[in-house]
Amino acid sequence: MFKNDQEMFALMKEKLYTAVVCDIMDELGYRNQAMSERIRPIHPDNVIVGRAKTCLAVDVYKIYENTYEKEIEAIDSLKENEVLVACTNNSTRNVLWGELLSTASKARGAVGAVIDGLIRDVKLINEMGFPVFCTGFKPLDSKGRGTFIDYDCPVECGGVLVNPGDVIFGDYDGVIVIPKEIVEKTITLALEKVSKEDNVRKELLEGASLAEVFKKYGVL
Amino acid sequence: MFKNDQEMFALMKEKLYTAVVCDIMDELGYRNQAMSERIRPIHPDNVIVGRAKTCLAVDVYKIYENTYEKEIEAIDSLKENEVLVACTNNSTRNVLWGELLSTASKARGAVGAVIDGLIRDVKLINEMGFPVFCTGFKPLDSKGRGTFIDYDCPVECGGVLVNPGDVIFGDYDGVIVIPKEIVEKTITLALEKVSKEDNVRKELLEGASLAEVFKKYGVL
Amino acid sequence: MFKNDQEMFALMKEKLYTAVVCDIMDELGYRNQAMSERIRPIHPDNVIVGRAKTCLAVDVYKIYENTYEKEIEAIDSLKENEVLVACTNNSTRNVLWGELLSTASKARGAVGAVIDGLIRDVKLINEMGFPVFCTGFKPLDSKGRGTFIDYDCPVECGGVLVNPGDVIFGDYDGVIVIPKEIVEKTITLALEKVSKEDNVRKELLEGASLAEVFKKYGVL
Amino acid sequence: MFKNDQEMFALMKEKLYTAVVCDIMDELGYRNQAMSERIRPIHPDNVIVGRAKTCLAVDVYKIYENTYEKEIEAIDSLKENEVLVACTNNSTRNVLWGELLSTASKARGAVGAVIDGLIRDVKLINEMGFPVFCTGFKPLDSKGRGTFIDYDCPVECGGVLVNPGDVIFGDYDGVIVIPKEIVEKTITLALEKVSKEDNVRKELLEGASLAEVFKKYGVL
Amino acid sequence: MFKNDQEMFALMKEKLYTAVVCDIMDELGYRNQAMSERIRPIHPDNVIVGRAKTCLAVDVYKIYENTYEKEIEAIDSLKENEVLVACTNNSTRNVLWGELLSTASKARGAVGAVIDGLIRDVKLINEMGFPVFCTGFKPLDSKGRGTFIDYDCPVECGGVLVNPGDVIFGDYDGVIVIPKEIVEKTITLALEKVSKEDNVRKELLEGASLAEVFKKYGVL
Amino acid sequence: MFKNDQEMFALMKEKLYTAVVCDIMDELGYRNQAMSERIRPIHPDNVIVGRAKTCLAVDVYKIYENTYEKEIEAIDSLKENEVLVACTNNSTRNVLWGELLSTASKARGAVGAVIDGLIRDVKLINEMGFPVFCTGFKPLDSKGRGTFIDYDCPVECGGVLVNPGDVIFGDYDGVIVIPKEIVEKTITLALEKVSKEDNVRKELLEGASLAEVFKKYGVL
Repeated sequence: MFKNDQEMFALMKEKLYTAVVCDIMDELGYRNQAMSERIRPIHPDNVIVGRAKTCLAVDVYKIYENTYEKEIEAIDSLKENEVLVACTNNSTRNVLWGELLSTASKARGAVGAVIDGLIRDVKLINEMGFPVFCTGFKPLDSKGRGTFIDYDCPVECGGVLVNPGDVIFGDYDGVIVIPKEIVEKTITLALEKVSKEDNVRKELLEGASLAEVFKKYGVL
Repeated sequence: MFKNDQEMFALMKEKLYTAVVCDIMDELGYRNQAMSERIRPIHPDNVIVGRAKTCLAVDVYKIYENTYEKEIEAIDSLKENEVLVACTNNSTRNVLWGELLSTASKARGAVGAVIDGLIRDVKLINEMGFPVFCTGFKPLDSKGRGTFIDYDCPVECGGVLVNPGDVIFGDYDGVIVIPKEIVEKTITLALEKVSKEDNVRKELLEGASLAEVFKKYGVL
Repeated sequence: MFKNDQEMFALMKEKLYTAVVCDIMDELGYRNQAMSERIRPIHPDNVIVGRAKTCLAVDVYKIYENTYEKEIEAIDSLKENEVLVACTNNSTRNVLWGELLSTASKARGAVGAVIDGLIRDVKLINEMGFPVFCTGFKPLDSKGRGTFIDYDCPVECGGVLVNPGDVIFGDYDGVIVIPKEIVEKTITLALEKVSKEDNVRKELLEGASLAEVFKKYGVL
Repeated sequence: MFKNDQEMFALMKEKLYTAVVCDIMDELGYRNQAMSERIRPIHPDNVIVGRAKTCLAVDVYKIYENTYEKEIEAIDSLKENEVLVACTNNSTRNVLWGELLSTASKARGAVGAVIDGLIRDVKLINEMGFPVFCTGFKPLDSKGRGTFIDYDCPVECGGVLVNPGDVIFGDYDGVIVIPKEIVEKTITLALEKVSKEDNVRKELLEGASLAEVFKKYGVL
Repeated sequence: MFKNDQEMFALMKEKLYTAVVCDIMDELGYRNQAMSERIRPIHPDNVIVGRAKTCLAVDVYKIYENTYEKEIEAIDSLKENEVLVACTNNSTRNVLWGELLSTASKARGAVGAVIDGLIRDVKLINEMGFPVFCTGFKPLDSKGRGTFIDYDCPVECGGVLVNPGDVIFGDYDGVIVIPKEIVEKTITLALEKVSKEDNVRKELLEGASLAEVFKKYGVL
Repeated sequence: MFKNDQEMFALMKEKLYTAVVCDIMDELGYRNQAMSERIRPIHPDNVIVGRAKTCLAVDVYKIYENTYEKEIEAIDSLKENEVLVACTNNSTRNVLWGELLSTASKARGAVGAVIDGLIRDVKLINEMGFPVFCTGFKPLDSKGRGTFIDYDCPVECGGVLVNPGDVIFGDYDGVIVIPKEIVEKTITLALEKVSKEDNVRKELLEGASLAEVFKKYGVL
């Protein structure tokens, strides 16, 4: 249906928003695909559409010799249109992400990062226009506080299971995960739904009651 | 003292702010009228003044046939200058509010919504200039996640008991509830207090110590 | 190394940011100096650099006669370049800070406030350009809800022990505490580090892999 | 495989425990069947095995006329070997369960109750030997605090989805839910597994290293 | 109605339990008199009936010279049949209560303590038969962690406002507060109610449906 | 002072309790050595005294091939009088400990386990008399939920930093960590203190006021 990811992602950014995609996934029986409300964009205009590059970080209590090994591997293997998705197991002690990792990721073609944890260098990251969704900020380094133990593995981020290659879609309403096996179907249906919603809105604005509109269109 | 709600609400929006109204209610012995700090405006300029239209929503775990019935009734019965106040019993699973409900509510003359829970379509709601206070965002629909079980009933919102007809006042400092039996008295006293505070501020700016100013005016 | 606080604080504001100072303190073995991510600036441009004036407030359940005594003493004894740092023991019931205290503090030369608790009058404080970091907002007064029991004493704020005279540094990434005995050393080292980081960033932007850059510069 | 529920439940009580059943469900791909650790038995000897009779209760803020209607219906329709499983959406305000409901349930043949919420009359319930798992105790009545809105419907209890007819198994380690479509298979496999575990234990007690035992039996 | 506290408390201990007293207070419009489920007895047989001696403790971060002054005053002024009720503002850092204070309180005739916080020496306190309700245990001393700032003042304990002289009633279901102005009325009505409940129980045990019993007696 | 660990641990078990050891560590300036109140013994009579064998476990989201490798190594290298101390970074998803690990640990001479997380097989572990302190129970296996990534490393357990070789002391009041460099000094002083406390208790029981006793002995 779509020539490639490039084309599909461009269409998603132009015409879709996370809420309509969630409605389609609900209909398809995928009802737990929206991350927790704790995960917020660092800039109100941040929008992310891309394939998940998953990472698993954990808290540690000493400075391990090879502490950056897996992290460097993960970042250096990022590809065009990928989104780094990091699980920290709810750490508020470690700070996983910052400006240098953003710069390195962007240089590899990554289109954003979703961190279920804290980040730093927030203003600099905003200035470089790299979209990041996270749970908060703290000016610390990860050395001796946390380390990557795996990447390209299933992780839980914001309460949703993310597999490598799933499509991540984040906007001001939140971040959702579209499992890779239903991506094309979901996006196709969402594009269709979006065109119908305009009528509902128009009739409500013209004064129709919610009951009338719901009877006619069957949506709320 | 006031001709009608219309006039009183206009005066409140022009001259008052939530903090001074809280101080008056404290003096009158109503000390638990400020909602939890978790409830925030979706836009920094959002201000709400209106009568509470209360709603009670709860979490459910299947799609009930008549799931929208009470919700549609509640919205369609909204009147001019009313504020929809929704209790979700702290749900972070359901998403009670979105653009269509905002559009429908605005069309009926409602002046805002206070949701003790999550909402979606935040940017669209901001664009239409409908003020909403809530606890967070998630791009999900309520179908199969929550339903209205009552409206025009007492509810707890942000930790404060709200009765239908109470006056809701929300600004950047938070949301407060003025019980309907003390509305006129409270607003009258608040308007008086506001004029005195300017002197305190002026003397402090001119270098008076806090001790001197407190001795003279008795306020902090 | 620095002529006086005035000069040092000016340099910090011009050249440093909290993250680089944390990295230096990590190296010096001071690893728990960043306050909790719950403490945020009330305006994105708020930056604070100054000496801690510590205060200890607690919740109470009646209106004590001398409720404002210690608070007035504390504020009236603020000196140039001081930052009021208030511990409330995680109260979400009391509201410690507002416009009048900000006005009085500013008039005494204080450069900001860090409140581990709630504040009010947020828009007015922003208008007067007084930087405040806190955990949230509520439009209540402290009378009958909380009182100062001490000041110029050790307190815990955002999970970090703060002693009177420690240097407080807050920016968009968060708030950190530089113990007074290591202030000069820390700032001197941070100023040195900042100049090196530009090379790392430049090489990453030019396409170097993270592995190469880390090998060359040893930082991430 | 089993003549009827009666026989199967008797075997489960005699030979199985929740941990071994969880291991089997893990192998079958059902990995989220253990309720939250917040749900505890009110007596250390409480064991429950039975079919789920699900109930959905919610918080309310006034005394509704028909407040007990659904609750009475639910209890009066309990059948032999059923376990009442109640969802309260994490209420710590309502108290759903007490001695009279226990007495009525027991009289209908119910074998226990699992309440994701608070209960009262704990000592009396223990004296009558009716096993209950819950999250805590408070001596209040439900009138004006909560009401049943449905029963025999899917509910979430302790974070696990429970459908009517699923098998509930609770012991000192916690409460698990065996989906009705895999009950026979799960119990059959669990009975087989239990007999093997004795050898592992025996060899460990005789001094074998964990590595040897794991190599030989493949379990931990 | 009662000769004195002594007689009334003896009757309460013999015939009443917290649940029935809560039901009466509900009827009288006092609906928020049960403390949080976090506050538990340190021994399953602990029962407390007495007049509240209220204390207000707060966290501190240095060792104050007069740190024990108010605490000693409070304990030494305890009278027969009093219950020490301590508010710590949810501290999990301080440990307010232990064996020596229990010994001293018991020697003055106090009948128990309700601590909204942590205690230590739990086994020793149980051995001396002094009933204590609290939120948990930790083996620390209060010196440098917390101090009493007032006593015989209103405090909040387990979420309920307690005034000096209110009657405290604690059993295995939890702790309740009977405001001093309604004590006699409440206890009189509770004693009446208790005698009726036996019939309900009896009929349920004999197999009556809940619907029949509720129709006949109007209680659940 | 003590011939060996064996002798010292025997003395500690016979004469000391955690509270008195905390008081001594407070005096020596070690004030954060008591673990969180969330960590409780699984049996009221559990007492642990031994050297810490630290382990670091983390949550994972797939079944790793070598998932048990480090865990088996850690358990098989346990020595006489050691206590397994496991950090799970607050996991409520993984269940780290159960009967087989207890059996294996006991067979190697270990004297107990302190798990900052959940365990299973609680009744069986109690029957074999192996003391365990933990945060709760759940009947799940760790496979695919968590894995050991290191042992014999610094970890945080119950909020306290634990190094290999520190002495762990747990009783009904909680668990404390005695840093290895102050063990002998701390225990010696604690043994001295214990003998003095009896006088205080005796005088209080004979009716002395707390003020008198505090004046005379300087302890509370």
